[in-house]
Amino acid sequence: MIAGERIRVFCAGRTDAGVHAVAQVVHFECSAQRPVSSWVRGVNSLLPAGVHVWYAQEVSSEFHARYSARSRCYRYLLYNGPAVPACWEEKVGWFHRPLDFEAMRRAAAFLVGRHDFSAFRAADCQAKSPIRTMWRVKIRRIATEQIPGWGESAWFAFDFEADGFLHHMVRNIVGALVEVGKGGAPPEWISELMACGERRLAAPTFPAMGLYFCGADYGQESSLPFGGRIVRWPLIGWSGESEDGSAPFGVEERRE
Amino acid sequence: MIAGERIRVFCAGRTDAGVHAVAQVVHFECSAQRPVSSWVRGVNSLLPAGVHVWYAQEVSSEFHARYSARSRCYRYLLYNGPAVPACWEEKVGWFHRPLDFEAMRRAAAFLVGRHDFSAFRAADCQAKSPIRTMWRVKIRRIATEQIPGWGESAWFAFDFEADGFLHHMVRNIVGALVEVGKGGAPPEWISELMACGERRLAAPTFPAMGLYFCGADYGQESSLPFGGRIVRWPLIGWSGESEDGSAPFGVEERRE
Repeated sequence: MIAGERIRVFCAGRTDAGVHAVAQVVHFECSAQRPVSSWVRGVNSLLPAGVHVWYAQEVSSEFHARYSARSRCYRYLLYNGPAVPACWEEKVGWFHRPLDFEAMRRAAAFLVGRHDFSAFRAADCQAKSPIRTMWRVKIRRIATEQIPGWGESAWFAFDFEADGFLHHMVRNIVGALVEVGKGGAPPEWISELMACGERRLAAPTFPAMGLYFCGADYGQESSLPFGGRIVRWPLIGWSGESEDGSAPFGVEERRE
Repeated sequence: MIAGERIRVFCAGRTDAGVHAVAQVVHFECSAQRPVSSWVRGVNSLLPAGVHVWYAQEVSSEFHARYSARSRCYRYLLYNGPAVPACWEEKVGWFHRPLDFEAMRRAAAFLVGRHDFSAFRAADCQAKSPIRTMWRVKIRRIATEQIPGWGESAWFAFDFEADGFLHHMVRNIVGALVEVGKGGAPPEWISELMACGERRLAAPTFPAMGLYFCGADYGQESSLPFGGRIVRWPLIGWSGESEDGSAPFGVEERRE
């Protein structure tokens, strides 16, 4: 016990069972005074495998890991090939028929902006409002090899940045984008779904295993490192945001 | 049971406990006649999680998954940062102090060619000869973020292609390269180690979890797909061989 007392922690974003987090931000209040290194190394010595502290600092009493965040980022990783990628089985979603990248890109563009996301909301979602602002949706594809009798296998990363997300919202959106990608609906269907707001008309929820909470943006004026933008993309297939800036690799809409 | 009889399988390359394989090649002899799809889908329906068949075909009776292979490829994935990368804990090695990429690149160049690899051979290695030809060593580095108080974290991929590998050879070589990278020895030390052939003078064996068997090369004249070169690199950090051809990203020596 490092804090020496019971503490309550608050997280930047939710991760349901099976969902990964590569850049969770956590805050807590505590009366103990300890050097930052104790909060990092001490806590790491007690955490179970699969969870680690990267960095710690003191923050002002106004900071709140959840309420101070201006936006949150999630990535869904999907393998598109004839068989589950065995080495990454718990780490990625999988779809077994070839997906149309262009159709999914066009569909994703409809998601950007301020919308009622009721069609992508779980039945037990506790949020007061289904309105969210999606700042950015980006889909990237990396072709891997031609599989005899199947075609070109590929990895997809679906990146989402919004002021907040409803319960199962990303997994439901990915389900709808894959529906478009496999030819089950045209790209405009996404727009129609949002207009009607009926969850039961949308596509199935995609499995948790492909979903990564990638971080949150607290703005330049925060005392946090990286300009308050704590984002770590999982490294399957891509090395991070800065590496592919030149490649026209998907839909990108950024706030000004 | 798909074969309907006991079969004995032969693999292209060894994977010790904890080592992953992304492109194992397996052959067996069997009297049953079945369509190729049965060998793929039928076997997959019985395999445990974490192992899947991608592709199957009939081969000539001369083909042998182990003895027909001209070369084998392994990749060692290493995270260089202040803490174990929690999401990939069983999938990558880790080193906690900043590594000198240039020094490791220069050290790796000494490995290319026909050498006595006794210095990198496990005590219980069964191979008749310690002589192997290393066709290619390539180290790649992808910088990730600056960690306050630590520096620039990064992922390293160490790729090796040789006609064959001794027991623990890759993990021992990576141990030695990391010794150079952390400043414990100059790059030329690799050359001295090979010359003296003393395992006890070399560095510790690196953990199995970062090691991937990536495939084998059977040559153009084989009936196998991809020109007989069955290689799949794990997708952490890189998208595969073809994606970075332009970047001078490490040591590369190719056979003519």
